[in-house]
Amino acid sequence: MIRYLAVEGIDGSGKSTVTGALVEALRARGRSVVAVREPGGTPAGEAIRSIVLGRGFDLDDWAEALLFAAARAQLAADVVAPALERGDLVVTDRSYFSSLAYQGAGRGLGVEIVRVVNEAGLRGIVPDLIVLLRIDAEKGLAREDERDRISVAGIDLQRRVAEAYDHLAAAEPGRFVVIDAARPVSEIVAEIMKLLEVR
Amino acid sequence: MIRYLAVEGIDGSGKSTVTGALVEALRARGRSVVAVREPGGTPAGEAIRSIVLGRGFDLDDWAEALLFAAARAQLAADVVAPALERGDLVVTDRSYFSSLAYQGAGRGLGVEIVRVVNEAGLRGIVPDLIVLLRIDAEKGLAREDERDRISVAGIDLQRRVAEAYDHLAAAEPGRFVVIDAARPVSEIVAEIMKLLEVR
Repeated sequence: MIRYLAVEGIDGSGKSTVTGALVEALRARGRSVVAVREPGGTPAGEAIRSIVLGRGFDLDDWAEALLFAAARAQLAADVVAPALERGDLVVTDRSYFSSLAYQGAGRGLGVEIVRVVNEAGLRGIVPDLIVLLRIDAEKGLAREDERDRISVAGIDLQRRVAEAYDHLAAAEPGRFVVIDAARPVSEIVAEIMKLLEVR
Repeated sequence: MIRYLAVEGIDGSGKSTVTGALVEALRARGRSVVAVREPGGTPAGEAIRSIVLGRGFDLDDWAEALLFAAARAQLAADVVAPALERGDLVVTDRSYFSSLAYQGAGRGLGVEIVRVVNEAGLRGIVPDLIVLLRIDAEKGLAREDERDRISVAGIDLQRRVAEAYDHLAAAEPGRFVVIDAARPVSEIVAEIMKLLEVR
């Protein structure tokens, strides 16, 4: 049974919309859901988020990757682990796979070393199902309205990230489900509900 | 020739005093020195420092370790690397060996995985000489006046950290020099000056 679901995809793939609609649908069916977003979700995590996503600092790429990993470790310890222990379903908008795609591949730090760094902090508290909302880099960027420090980095980064997501999904077919992000949100949510065996 | 020197030791070992006196002595001899402290030393690093060392957050141990590594990566990229390229001598009050000792051993995260995480962010920008100011955990705690979130954790942590420093120094005799922290500061500085071949 799926207990920890991550929604992933490039900027503009509709992660937040899908996650919001999914959580609402799950709660309407009586499921106890804890919804989180990365980075953030804890007081320390929100402070870290403001350093990473604000435009106040000229962040080094590795500093950025380590800050994401730190916020994630805090969230895993304080929110995800207790929720899983209570038997709640955890739904997250982004996970450490975002770092593998954005920092590992997009920024060129290396997917494997970014994985090692993140998994160190997560201590096994990782999603058991990842829904990848797939969209072309160009379409994603066009759909993206809220521009933060990372998404302004442009189309080349988006392309590398999109490709990295495809590789990550292909490498773990048992854990990843790829869904066309162009489909209506209601259909996407219905498909995820089926995967979660919620009727 | 030594180009990047770190001063290490437990809380109360006199690192800041020794580092300050050393930098002053080096400058009096006409050496171009860049003095840094960890965590901090950059705008992003200072923001991270306030999360790590403030008492406002109940930080997870791994989040703490990753925040230190992030501040360090930023410092290496923005300050240490350019200084080394200019041919300056870099003197740091603490380095990633502090994380190996405090987070790796003291908090029990594991020295080797904390090393992997930090070295990932440092990309080879690491001290070539580490001066370990050695003092008993009890004496160090008694000498420590400014209590931050970490040093209030007490004598058991201090003992584990002191032991970890001894192991780290023993493992790399070519890179570590151990100096009795109870000696007068002027003598300690003179000994380090000799190691740096400054006359």
